[in-house]
Amino acid sequence: MKTFFDCIPCFLSQTLATLRRITDDETMHEIVLRRVLQLISEINLSQSPPAMAQEIHRIIKQMTGNADPFAQEKKEHNRFAMSLIPEIRKRYQNDPDLFVKMLRLSIAGNIIDSGIKDKITSSMVLQSIDRSMKTALEIKTVDELYNEVREANDILYLGDNAGEIVFDRLLIEQMPYEKVTYIVRGEPIINDVTIEDAREVDMLDLVDVIDNGSDAPGTILETCSHEFQERFASSDLVIAKGQGNYETLSDVNKRIFFLLQVKCPVIAKDIGFEVGSFVVKANTECR
Amino acid sequence: MKTFFDCIPCFLSQTLATLRRITDDETMHEIVLRRVLQLISEINLSQSPPAMAQEIHRIIKQMTGNADPFAQEKKEHNRFAMSLIPEIRKRYQNDPDLFVKMLRLSIAGNIIDSGIKDKITSSMVLQSIDRSMKTALEIKTVDELYNEVREANDILYLGDNAGEIVFDRLLIEQMPYEKVTYIVRGEPIINDVTIEDAREVDMLDLVDVIDNGSDAPGTILETCSHEFQERFASSDLVIAKGQGNYETLSDVNKRIFFLLQVKCPVIAKDIGFEVGSFVVKANTECR
Repeated sequence: MKTFFDCIPCFLSQTLATLRRITDDETMHEIVLRRVLQLISEINLSQSPPAMAQEIHRIIKQMTGNADPFAQEKKEHNRFAMSLIPEIRKRYQNDPDLFVKMLRLSIAGNIIDSGIKDKITSSMVLQSIDRSMKTALEIKTVDELYNEVREANDILYLGDNAGEIVFDRLLIEQMPYEKVTYIVRGEPIINDVTIEDAREVDMLDLVDVIDNGSDAPGTILETCSHEFQERFASSDLVIAKGQGNYETLSDVNKRIFFLLQVKCPVIAKDIGFEVGSFVVKANTECR
Repeated sequence: MKTFFDCIPCFLSQTLATLRRITDDETMHEIVLRRVLQLISEINLSQSPPAMAQEIHRIIKQMTGNADPFAQEKKEHNRFAMSLIPEIRKRYQNDPDLFVKMLRLSIAGNIIDSGIKDKITSSMVLQSIDRSMKTALEIKTVDELYNEVREANDILYLGDNAGEIVFDRLLIEQMPYEKVTYIVRGEPIINDVTIEDAREVDMLDLVDVIDNGSDAPGTILETCSHEFQERFASSDLVIAKGQGNYETLSDVNKRIFFLLQVKCPVIAKDIGFEVGSFVVKANTECR
């Protein structure tokens, strides 16, 4: 998906929100903001939004010397999501339809996106969980996913955000997880999952976890590591969480199921679901 | 009031909204947007937001050749507001407190601000009118305004937006209007009032109307005409409508009453009232 003009104000809000996490120094805010404005004034807009965000966050990291501005809140997101697990396990222990319930929860967890909301609160996450059990999903696509997960031999599950990864784990438990590899980003970027998050939430005890070698908030194949590119090519099913993975993979010729919440009008227009929708979408053309 | 970093994403959204009114040509959108990004990357941020908007809208007008992108909707705003007048006159004909009621309505009309909301709907205006009669106003300041209007010899009433001007007329009718001069912008800028709007809504039949000689969406004294500057200096009371006039005059050493709705978090922080508030504020330090 290309970048739309409407993404530009959003990039600047995100730049500012990131800078304010790093320092109170307004002179620094101004210097970096001016550099980012200059970058965007010359940037190639046919790139996907995560490719632009990658360039912007590289500038922020370089100019401020802070390689991981979201480190602290990622830990909080993981801790909060982990604290919900015992109650979730208890509530659904005898549920006859655990795959669909955990699928819903994994999409609920996609609300934990610091790229969209400056502050993720516990009540936002709890509301999202509540909504996930009531919202309509495209059952036909969910059934397809269920069946293909069982048929596949090599499944890549592309993670999105810290905190959300805890809900991904619950869904992966309902799959033949010995066939699943969980993918994290290669370097910290916004509150996206890295190998540290996988370790913190015990994902490493359940499945293989590899990083994609990239610092983009999505999966820009050509800038991922050679190892990841090979794994991506050889896998027979990809499950991709979140907007960033959708934005970067929606045009890729591969069997991919996208699981996400639609959190902005630009994605809504592109994907064909309203803002707030819980989406399970397969890129059927590529089957 | 200086420009805050949070104004920058907003300027870009406003640029885009303006461009989309002018043309569907996305190549033109991109060229102008890049030029505006470059401008902001180098701009003097100690200026007020309307001073920056003035520079941005000059670029948009120059590059697209469209000097008045809001012309059509300004006419619609005036027409819609005019259509409400008979009902308003009927409802309040025997009201014992007409000055305060019309003051409330004139602030209600400040919702008609195309710089903030891309689309102004009839229901937004009706809701704003409804709210204006229920919201708390600072009665002490309203009483001060009432008394000073009676004592003053030369009152300048600085208008803000088309449509809103119709409600301004209702308030001015409750003043000794032979002492009032209504001020409009010197050239079209967003949906701000110009002399054409004053003519359309019969303001010219009630009071003298002069323009300030400027194309800023506010009152930047040093860029206004010499005639206006002299009138401003010699007047003994100024009533300034809307955010743009507040942003440009809040630091000016003059007795000014600001009447506005707070429509963005930046103004809210500066003026000390929450977003959505109806404000009557005097700059008391300068009395």
